Amino acid sequence: MSLIVQKFGGSSVADAESIKRVAKRIVATKKAGNDVVVAVSAMGDTTDDLLDLAHEVAPIPAPRELDMLLTAGERISMALLAMAIRNLGHDARSFTGSQAGMLTDARHGAARIVDVTPGRVREALDDGAIAIVAGFQGFNRGTGDITTLGRGGSDTTAVALAAALDADVCEIYTDVDGIFTADPRVVPKARKLDRVTSEEMLELAASGAKVLYIRAVEYARRHGVTLHVRSSFNNNAGTIVYNPSKPGHDENGDPVEEPIIAGVAHDLSEAKITVVGVPDVPGKAAQIFNIVARSGANIDMIVQNVSAAATGLTDISFTLPKADAQGVLTALTVERDAIGYQALQHDDQIGKLSLVGAGMRTNAGVSAQLFTALYDAGINIEMISTSEIRISVVTRADMLNDAVRAVHRAFGLDGESEAVVYAGTGR
Amino acid sequence: MSLIVQKFGGSSVADAESIKRVAKRIVATKKAGNDVVVAVSAMGDTTDDLLDLAHEVAPIPAPRELDMLLTAGERISMALLAMAIRNLGHDARSFTGSQAGMLTDARHGAARIVDVTPGRVREALDDGAIAIVAGFQGFNRGTGDITTLGRGGSDTTAVALAAALDADVCEIYTDVDGIFTADPRVVPKARKLDRVTSEEMLELAASGAKVLYIRAVEYARRHGVTLHVRSSFNNNAGTIVYNPSKPGHDENGDPVEEPIIAGVAHDLSEAKITVVGVPDVPGKAAQIFNIVARSGANIDMIVQNVSAAATGLTDISFTLPKADAQGVLTALTVERDAIGYQALQHDDQIGKLSLVGAGMRTNAGVSAQLFTALYDAGINIEMISTSEIRISVVTRADMLNDAVRAVHRAFGLDGESEAVVYAGTGR
Repeated sequence: MSLIVQKFGGSSVADAESIKRVAKRIVATKKAGNDVVVAVSAMGDTTDDLLDLAHEVAPIPAPRELDMLLTAGERISMALLAMAIRNLGHDARSFTGSQAGMLTDARHGAARIVDVTPGRVREALDDGAIAIVAGFQGFNRGTGDITTLGRGGSDTTAVALAAALDADVCEIYTDVDGIFTADPRVVPKARKLDRVTSEEMLELAASGAKVLYIRAVEYARRHGVTLHVRSSFNNNAGTIVYNPSKPGHDENGDPVEEPIIAGVAHDLSEAKITVVGVPDVPGKAAQIFNIVARSGANIDMIVQNVSAAATGLTDISFTLPKADAQGVLTALTVERDAIGYQALQHDDQIGKLSLVGAGMRTNAGVSAQLFTALYDAGINIEMISTSEIRISVVTRADMLNDAVRAVHRAFGLDGESEAVVYAGTGR
Repeated sequence: MSLIVQKFGGSSVADAESIKRVAKRIVATKKAGNDVVVAVSAMGDTTDDLLDLAHEVAPIPAPRELDMLLTAGERISMALLAMAIRNLGHDARSFTGSQAGMLTDARHGAARIVDVTPGRVREALDDGAIAIVAGFQGFNRGTGDITTLGRGGSDTTAVALAAALDADVCEIYTDVDGIFTADPRVVPKARKLDRVTSEEMLELAASGAKVLYIRAVEYARRHGVTLHVRSSFNNNAGTIVYNPSKPGHDENGDPVEEPIIAGVAHDLSEAKITVVGVPDVPGKAAQIFNIVARSGANIDMIVQNVSAAATGLTDISFTLPKADAQGVLTALTVERDAIGYQALQHDDQIGKLSLVGAGMRTNAGVSAQLFTALYDAGINIEMISTSEIRISVVTRADMLNDAVRAVHRAFGLDGESEAVVYAGTGR
């Protein structure tokens, strides 16, 4: 008998009919002889509707109360799902984050899991019941208050439960068939990946792939949880996100040949800021990025050009989420004299393309091949940054889709047929 | 400084605007120098909407899951109310039934309060905050499960908090101005009562007055909580429901002259069943009402006629909620041979009029005056039942309103002017 954790997002439980359909799928898993734990999000647009209400009564809602409010959403979906399952003749019990032992710190709206004590979930399984757990929510023991895990929190709930219960697999149901070599809306010939390492998935997610949230993948990687990303609209196998037992081996210790390239991710959500004419003396970069950090911005790529010997000045560029740019520009302007730079440039018309693959480690020449492909397609590279298994380049925003298609083709990733693209967004 | 508990029902918090209005009223009470605890119901039709959803996914929803579902309603309203208050510059914290220490037994859907341990509410007050508590919901320690208190549960929450916190008054906000000498929709000249004893209120509520639920009044009476029933649409004083320190005295021990009659209540929700031709031997009534009790029906009035000497047979009539009648008829039909009666009669066209007043105890002749008033109005009396401070009579349903007006006038209860009647229902 296996223990399977299944996560269903808001679009999978948008109304009574969807809830009944999901209930049938859960029962089928149970009937196949598995223990089943389900993490469920709030129905459809419930969370957005509650947020709208909150902003109607208070322009800046108190974070504690916002968490109290939003957690009503999963309470509704999980109770309905449990009822629907019981109506199919199987025992089911719903548990809030608190009841399921999802213990977090006290950061309302973006709480981190500090421990998972799923005693009541285990008890339900021992009684032969299906356990339905509210996604996205937790509980802080110190304050006794309800918390939420932030964006993608239900994925994290599912993975954390899978880790704590030592589940065989954590199935993430979504409205796409799995992880693709590129976004099928941009590259029609993108192929679904059967398997991808959690390290690659992490780089893909961090580079703009939207199917899984980084935090859930990180958690799965750290705790050795195998994910199965699959569609809630069919029974096809999706993509397994696994943790190699050692390099070049699968999760069971069997050797596998890792493809050089897992996929191409792209991201239009970032802006670029360049600090022009910074004195090239030790400590300037630290000074700048301390100021940036205090503004709360998440920096992605950083590039510093070699300084021109004649002037002793250099330029420092970095990318960051568009929404964070204005705050950083303000903070840097205030400190202009202290830093001693000449000018600030802000560019929100950039796109980022990332090539990800665990096999990159042992294969030279991937960068050269990437740059050649972009050059052949007439696309200019503005910034470059690399990790062990990823190469990212910044291009003009309006050239990004062309760049993704060119690179996908150049690395032989194009499939035979066009992928089926669903209307939804996977969230 | 006083401690005031305020209860706002669903119609008072139906949308964002209403919530902001209620927040202002709460803040005004706080600014007047009081500690304030608020019990709040779910917004408008939320509970009914959730019930509809439940029945869409399962014809008979599991009681545990139904409680989990419905309690999402107050979670939403209390969090929004706390946000709205904070937006007015006052600290406010919302608490679920569980967080507020509302401990109940495990009867889902109709749980009874077994203890109230409002440590976190007290702590919030000590910090100068306004405490917002979810009405209607509780928590069972044995199972660790969420429960609900059943119909009128938010009133009970407010009263139970007032008792546990030793509040000076428990204000029940509704959409009428208070308790009236009769339903103003039936008797336009009904007068608002300034004060009424909890005992009278109990009889009025049990006799069909809809403003307060019996259970909340019972709780208030047993725990010595003073209620103030008032309108959420104006600042007028409403009706004080007090607990006499001893007969003929107010809650502070000062003597008061109790009016003979507090009011006239009426009720169209009951049916009458008559068991015809019951052998007049010991034990027959016990046998019949044991059968009735097993069917789960709540019996109100019981009348047994003197048996006709010639036949040795008697008739036993009783009234009960219309919804319970069919079950009782079935149960009695099954046991017909065992009881040995001749026939069953079912009558759902009855109305009940009740005259309530603590002064009745010490005033003879009230019954005679009531019967005379009904005779003068040409209304036939079908059943009579009395308590120490109440006389109830059953009439034809279509004569009930006439009966109420006639009795109200005959006992000198008519006011100078017509009462203002709101569109709402008080719930």
